[in-house]
Amino acid sequence: MLQREFTEEQQMFRDAYRKFLAAEIVPHMEDWREAGIVDRSAFRKAGEQGFLMVWPDEQYGGMGDPDFRFEQIIIEETAYARAGDWYNSLHSRLVGPYLTRFGSQEQCQRLLPKCVSGEHVLAIAMTEPDAGSDLAGMRSTAVERDDHWLLNGSKTYISNGINADVVIVAAKTDPDNNPHHMTLFIVERGMAGFERGRNLKKMGLKAQDTAELFFNDVQVPKANVLGEPGKGFIYLMQGLAEERLIGAVGYLSAAQLSWDLTAEFVKERKAFGKPVAAYQNTQFKLAELRTELDIAQCFVDQCVRAFNAGELTAVDAAKAKLVTSELQVKVADAGVQMHGGAGYMDEYAISRQFTDARISPIYAGTSEVMKIIISRDCLGGDYNPFNTRNF
Amino acid sequence: MLQREFTEEQQMFRDAYRKFLAAEIVPHMEDWREAGIVDRSAFRKAGEQGFLMVWPDEQYGGMGDPDFRFEQIIIEETAYARAGDWYNSLHSRLVGPYLTRFGSQEQCQRLLPKCVSGEHVLAIAMTEPDAGSDLAGMRSTAVERDDHWLLNGSKTYISNGINADVVIVAAKTDPDNNPHHMTLFIVERGMAGFERGRNLKKMGLKAQDTAELFFNDVQVPKANVLGEPGKGFIYLMQGLAEERLIGAVGYLSAAQLSWDLTAEFVKERKAFGKPVAAYQNTQFKLAELRTELDIAQCFVDQCVRAFNAGELTAVDAAKAKLVTSELQVKVADAGVQMHGGAGYMDEYAISRQFTDARISPIYAGTSEVMKIIISRDCLGGDYNPFNTRNF
Amino acid sequence: MLQREFTEEQQMFRDAYRKFLAAEIVPHMEDWREAGIVDRSAFRKAGEQGFLMVWPDEQYGGMGDPDFRFEQIIIEETAYARAGDWYNSLHSRLVGPYLTRFGSQEQCQRLLPKCVSGEHVLAIAMTEPDAGSDLAGMRSTAVERDDHWLLNGSKTYISNGINADVVIVAAKTDPDNNPHHMTLFIVERGMAGFERGRNLKKMGLKAQDTAELFFNDVQVPKANVLGEPGKGFIYLMQGLAEERLIGAVGYLSAAQLSWDLTAEFVKERKAFGKPVAAYQNTQFKLAELRTELDIAQCFVDQCVRAFNAGELTAVDAAKAKLVTSELQVKVADAGVQMHGGAGYMDEYAISRQFTDARISPIYAGTSEVMKIIISRDCLGGDYNPFNTRNF
Amino acid sequence: MLQREFTEEQQMFRDAYRKFLAAEIVPHMEDWREAGIVDRSAFRKAGEQGFLMVWPDEQYGGMGDPDFRFEQIIIEETAYARAGDWYNSLHSRLVGPYLTRFGSQEQCQRLLPKCVSGEHVLAIAMTEPDAGSDLAGMRSTAVERDDHWLLNGSKTYISNGINADVVIVAAKTDPDNNPHHMTLFIVERGMAGFERGRNLKKMGLKAQDTAELFFNDVQVPKANVLGEPGKGFIYLMQGLAEERLIGAVGYLSAAQLSWDLTAEFVKERKAFGKPVAAYQNTQFKLAELRTELDIAQCFVDQCVRAFNAGELTAVDAAKAKLVTSELQVKVADAGVQMHGGAGYMDEYAISRQFTDARISPIYAGTSEVMKIIISRDCLGGDYNPFNTRNF
Ligand SMILES: Cc1cc2nc3c(=O)[nH]c(=O)nc-3n(C[C@H](O)[C@H](O)[C@H](O)COP(=O)(O)OP(=O)(O)OC[C@H]3O[C@@H](n4cnc5c(N)ncnc54)[C@H](O)[C@@H]3O)c2cc1C
Ligand SMILES: Cc1cc2nc3c(=O)[nH]c(=O)nc-3n(C[C@H](O)[C@H](O)[C@H](O)COP(=O)(O)OP(=O)(O)OC[C@H]3O[C@@H](n4cnc5c(N)ncnc54)[C@H](O)[C@@H]3O)c2cc1C
Ligand SMILES: Cc1cc2nc3c(=O)[nH]c(=O)nc-3n(C[C@H](O)[C@H](O)[C@H](O)COP(=O)(O)OP(=O)(O)OC[C@H]3O[C@@H](n4cnc5c(N)ncnc54)[C@H](O)[C@@H]3O)c2cc1C
Ligand SMILES: Cc1cc2nc3c(=O)[nH]c(=O)nc-3n(C[C@H](O)[C@H](O)[C@H](O)COP(=O)(O)OP(=O)(O)OC[C@H]3O[C@@H](n4cnc5c(N)ncnc54)[C@H](O)[C@@H]3O)c2cc1C
Repeated sequence: MLQREFTEEQQMFRDAYRKFLAAEIVPHMEDWREAGIVDRSAFRKAGEQGFLMVWPDEQYGGMGDPDFRFEQIIIEETAYARAGDWYNSLHSRLVGPYLTRFGSQEQCQRLLPKCVSGEHVLAIAMTEPDAGSDLAGMRSTAVERDDHWLLNGSKTYISNGINADVVIVAAKTDPDNNPHHMTLFIVERGMAGFERGRNLKKMGLKAQDTAELFFNDVQVPKANVLGEPGKGFIYLMQGLAEERLIGAVGYLSAAQLSWDLTAEFVKERKAFGKPVAAYQNTQFKLAELRTELDIAQCFVDQCVRAFNAGELTAVDAAKAKLVTSELQVKVADAGVQMHGGAGYMDEYAISRQFTDARISPIYAGTSEVMKIIISRDCLGGDYNPFNTRNF
Repeated sequence: MLQREFTEEQQMFRDAYRKFLAAEIVPHMEDWREAGIVDRSAFRKAGEQGFLMVWPDEQYGGMGDPDFRFEQIIIEETAYARAGDWYNSLHSRLVGPYLTRFGSQEQCQRLLPKCVSGEHVLAIAMTEPDAGSDLAGMRSTAVERDDHWLLNGSKTYISNGINADVVIVAAKTDPDNNPHHMTLFIVERGMAGFERGRNLKKMGLKAQDTAELFFNDVQVPKANVLGEPGKGFIYLMQGLAEERLIGAVGYLSAAQLSWDLTAEFVKERKAFGKPVAAYQNTQFKLAELRTELDIAQCFVDQCVRAFNAGELTAVDAAKAKLVTSELQVKVADAGVQMHGGAGYMDEYAISRQFTDARISPIYAGTSEVMKIIISRDCLGGDYNPFNTRNF
Repeated sequence: MLQREFTEEQQMFRDAYRKFLAAEIVPHMEDWREAGIVDRSAFRKAGEQGFLMVWPDEQYGGMGDPDFRFEQIIIEETAYARAGDWYNSLHSRLVGPYLTRFGSQEQCQRLLPKCVSGEHVLAIAMTEPDAGSDLAGMRSTAVERDDHWLLNGSKTYISNGINADVVIVAAKTDPDNNPHHMTLFIVERGMAGFERGRNLKKMGLKAQDTAELFFNDVQVPKANVLGEPGKGFIYLMQGLAEERLIGAVGYLSAAQLSWDLTAEFVKERKAFGKPVAAYQNTQFKLAELRTELDIAQCFVDQCVRAFNAGELTAVDAAKAKLVTSELQVKVADAGVQMHGGAGYMDEYAISRQFTDARISPIYAGTSEVMKIIISRDCLGGDYNPFNTRNF
Repeated sequence: MLQREFTEEQQMFRDAYRKFLAAEIVPHMEDWREAGIVDRSAFRKAGEQGFLMVWPDEQYGGMGDPDFRFEQIIIEETAYARAGDWYNSLHSRLVGPYLTRFGSQEQCQRLLPKCVSGEHVLAIAMTEPDAGSDLAGMRSTAVERDDHWLLNGSKTYISNGINADVVIVAAKTDPDNNPHHMTLFIVERGMAGFERGRNLKKMGLKAQDTAELFFNDVQVPKANVLGEPGKGFIYLMQGLAEERLIGAVGYLSAAQLSWDLTAEFVKERKAFGKPVAAYQNTQFKLAELRTELDIAQCFVDQCVRAFNAGELTAVDAAKAKLVTSELQVKVADAGVQMHGGAGYMDEYAISRQFTDARISPIYAGTSEVMKIIISRDCLGGDYNPFNTRNF
């Protein structure tokens, strides 16, 4: 496998974070899966030890180091520790940056410190019962009133939906019904008319609370409008490259774990007098997957580098998202098969790896949506022939 | 789709059974899934109405009609009603026939009527913690004593393991340690030393109880030896063609349901102003799967015909098992994807279709074992060139 | 493999035809491949011995037996003898029936006997440089004049294009430019203005002549209009189920040959001290393909049965075409790989099996067009749920 | 697509080489394909203009720049100009380095300048009729005599076999028959007993001469032994990483061309009133392949970087070879399909792209052999868990 590049500081950070996970998170995961929700203390403990949100400026309690590799380490270790359904990165790196990217300084000062400390849990609510891939199809609306906006509508499949204290909610705000005219609102726990629905039962990601949210005449103060009214759709698009990179890093790490779990299993497990790893079918399948993993890892690592250099395009991020999410399913699926009956049992990690994996090609933009993005780019007029196109 | 062939009587039987399922089974499935086990009343009700075991002679309470298509109808309708994890066919057609095939008349008279009526639930226990694909690796043993055999060992992953009243247990019985010298024992609820372990938590088939069984110095009376001592391995092999046909019929019916559920969903669901069914990717994927399903159905139906004619080989049954189980997973997987986020939610049937499907290529002989069987046959010396080999 | 069903007479026919091929056709194939065209004598010899067109009435020189299995035997044996690029079935069963289906008795009497005897070679010309899948896009036109039609246009990729004496040509004939208003013309060798272009160089099917045809003010006598003017498009559609069944039988037989060739090779070839057939990767791949072949064969045989009963739908034929053509490529591809370097050499049959196969998913309706046909059917409003739909 | 990194000098080199190809090579390729062999002048012209062998020291006529990216540029542009079957890189970068790596200074001085100038064409002969993947199975032998070795045996599938003036031949040289005891001999045109067999007819790579070579009592002077006697097997192994990197760069560039050709075609070609590129099936397939290509390119480029740093392992090179060769076939195959009938015609480049591609997963180590290498590595005892293994 090609050498990966992390600084010494980052290696130390990795070790420290791994120890934190082993001590504070991993021992509780099974209980939280049973409960269908992570205990809020998880966020606070991570916050206390400086592992929740590392990117914000020191004034907000972060490390202020913009190198994405710190986040990459967090995501990799979390996934590799089988704590992926804690969903800390949604809080810290996917939703958090909305505040600094589009929010006012007042909003940052008011909200960010508590996000960094883990007192506040974050969520983002775009999807609705009738609008997922096609956000422009959403029906939630907000109408401007004196000092507030009146928000109405319902959202579904919202991660951290039960735990969240602060939810960024997208709603349509054009009196003329332009479907792309949206605004992002910061809705806070306790606002009148903001109700939570069921914590939805789902195939995997058992410790993550995925919920319905309802907004009935919620009066969102103008101070809680994120950025400029009407620009919500554009804002949502702006974060996509980063969000998909976060996703890709996580999916791939989960796939790496599935491969490692399986390799270990087949070396131990015997059938017909030999380890299952001694059969050529096992060897070839694992070699194919090992190859795909290494190649995907190389690509993701280069995407991280490009991202750090400010050069990662939304299209390349879509490629990373597409490939890693499909690979995560593929490796977990092969892993289940090679585990035999054990692969179907909760007590073997691979079983949950499989059911957890299945959502990756669906959320944060389905594989089909990724293909739409990619084909639009490469079949568009601007695409150059191979030997001229990328330098 | 090519015409299928059922008699008028069979069509009526199908209708009646479908009504029975709708009235007595389907309304409880979700509760039973929650409980991790089917209520025993399910077996009794089916027994009462003549739907549990149809093949045994009238003297035992059955219809005595050997046409496999009655069983096919039961399996198809059960799967199509999403009651596949009731696992009635394991009881009635997979384990039940061991009694008539290898048992004495005394044993049949003693046990069969209660199996037909549903008072007794059946299970079969071969797999052990260290021996699944490779049955010859099992460690359970039985030693002959005066009027009984002393059975010791443990079994795992036993379907109906908690509910079962009568368990056919395979154990090694050769003093000289010939690994293929096994005997089948009829172990009954209440025999001293026969303990049940945990009802194992698993990915899918939630209503089916899969359990560990322990045998500590169980004294199995000689009257409870099935067939001749030492012939257990051969007996187990003899039922394989039929068992895999049962499996194949079920996997394929589940796949048919997944396709139908998905087709229905994509016709209703809209994205970007059009039904998801209006996109060519959706159409082509569903057309490919429709084709694979129709072809597999044709093969399975011909296998049923061959079985009725006494001509189904173990190798052809292995092909049917291999193809249908892989297809079941494939269709469910595509179905989840086309459902978008809904595909991940318990409340949408496709989600459970997917997790239920994943075991099919593993149990009743893994896909790898099927390929061993098939390759041994077709790469063996007896295989003739195409234009002479099969007539 | 499930039993196939042929009558004793058919078995004898198979043997006789196989002998004919071995004596008269196979020894010349390599020369004809070199020449890029089959010698016309091939058709005459087959005609003389009664193997060219078997289905026509005895008055025309045929056997008059409508059972499609005679054709199936011809196609299977031809493919299995590696004489598939002779393309006799295009002549005899694909184009020939146009005469009896739509032609007048005069036309049949005038033309059919020479087709049966092999003096006349047949072709059909639909495709044009700018219109393949989409026949309605063709530009050839014919305008009615006193006693003839004036035909203009050009066709391409026409099989038997050089050898053909009689070509059925589709052209647009609507003064009002309705794109589906076509007429079929019987164009004969020697008609003024009918020119042949190049015998196109292509990847495989080397012995088959695929050519361009040009029509410059060809005066086609009215006696050579096939059926009613304006109904050409409908006529073309009517033959599709049969044509695709012919295709499917051939593709599958070629695939059977590729499998047999490969199985034989890997049993002989040694690497690292063992036959290549002794490696599990080889075994599993061949077992998978064996299974797919057997299942496809079962489906095709049932389609033949349905066709004989007058019940084969265009949609089922499309399924057969889709699956068998893709499988032909897949088996040949795996076969090449398992042959190692030999797989790339003309002197090993598998190499040509591979390049010959690659056209099957393209002509006679591409796989994409098959999927359009199938999805239209199964996503249409008339499709019923599984347990009611096909009996 | 992620940015690739070449120096300005390299970009200029690329432009110059592209012009050279367009002027001197590309116009002749079709003739050479027809002839089954490249005219020797191709090598001389490239030599004259400094494009044949760039890596050797200036004393031998090269540029002396060890940066692999010059070779990468040559390979990429050659493949992208559809001149891949010229096979210049086999001469210059695959065989040539054997001289500097293992040869004496005398040998370098005697032979290298003419290789650089293109007067000598190089080949390497390992494979035999009965030994390909398993080189230790070769039967050619050489016995030491006074001032020479007596070489006997035959080789097959030797690239540049007809054109070659200097052939590096592997033969067994252990009196005790240790199968890995081999010696490499420099056999020159005109040595008595060195005969060439047929220029083998093959599926693709039509302009490349692939031949049998025979050695009957060839007296190879001791001055023509390469390196130390007995070390031949080890020498062959040492070049593997570099050879597979060369292969990977070429396969991938060919795949890039196939994609570009296809994208261009589907944008132009119309069916049913729309460009074929307007159909979602086309878009999605091309997006998937675009993604795979970009990811593979990233990996190959990183392998080049690792190679330049002296860090490329044989295992990573095997991964690159495996993935790019399979991808080359996959893209060409999809390209043929999307071309419709045109994809089967020699006059459309994609047709030859497809037949040329098919050898890549076979030679220079089959995909199966790559998987053996990779699985041995990753299932071996030294493999560490993901989050520790590659930094
Ligand atoms: C566990 C979980 C957590 C989630 N967390 C959040 C969250 O925190 N916040 C949030 O806002 N959302 C969240 N979501 C929602 C998620 O982002 C959506 O489910 C996803 O975007 C897909 O939308 P959908 O479910 O409406 O599917 P649909 O958009 O209805 O798609 C259905 C199918 O149609 C396909 N399709 C759609 N358009 C096309 C087209 N043009 N061509 C071809 N095929 C097409 C899709 O790919 C898919 O296969 C979550 C979902 C899940 C399951
Ligand atoms: C829900 C459920 C219900 C079950 N019900 C019953 C029941 O009622 N009664 C009962 O007796 N058992 C039952 N089983 C057990 C089931 O039959 C076994 O799990 C199955 O046979 C596989 O055995 P294993 O789990 O030991 O896997 P193993 O045999 O350990 O196989 C592990 C992996 O190795 C592969 N492998 C094995 N040998 C080879 C080889 N030679 N070459 C290549 N690969 C190989 C396998 O294919 C598999 O991928 C059940 C299992 C489950 C999960
Ligand atoms: C060896 C050979 C022999 C032949 N013999 C004959 C013959 O005897 N007589 C005759 O008339 N013709 C013959 N043909 C022509 C053959 O039938 C056509 O090539 C074929 O129908 C495809 O048409 P096309 O080449 O125009 O491809 P196109 O129709 O241009 O298709 C190009 C690609 O676009 C795809 N495509 C088209 N429409 C859609 C859509 N709506 N959605 C998604 N994808 C789409 C196609 O599937 C294909 O992949 C022959 C061809 C060959 C190569
Ligand atoms: C166009 C062309 C150019 C070539 N140029 C050269 C050249 O210049 N010099 C030269 O020396 N050689 C050359 N070769 C030969 C080439 O390197 C060999 O063909 C290749 O190494 C495969 O060897 P083989 O053909 O003997 O296949 P085999 O080794 O016989 O392999 C047959 C099949 O068995 C499989 N197999 C083998 N071992 C195993 C195993 N343990 N487990 C599972 N599967 C296995 C292989 O993967 C393959 O699928 C060339 C070949 C071609 C076709």
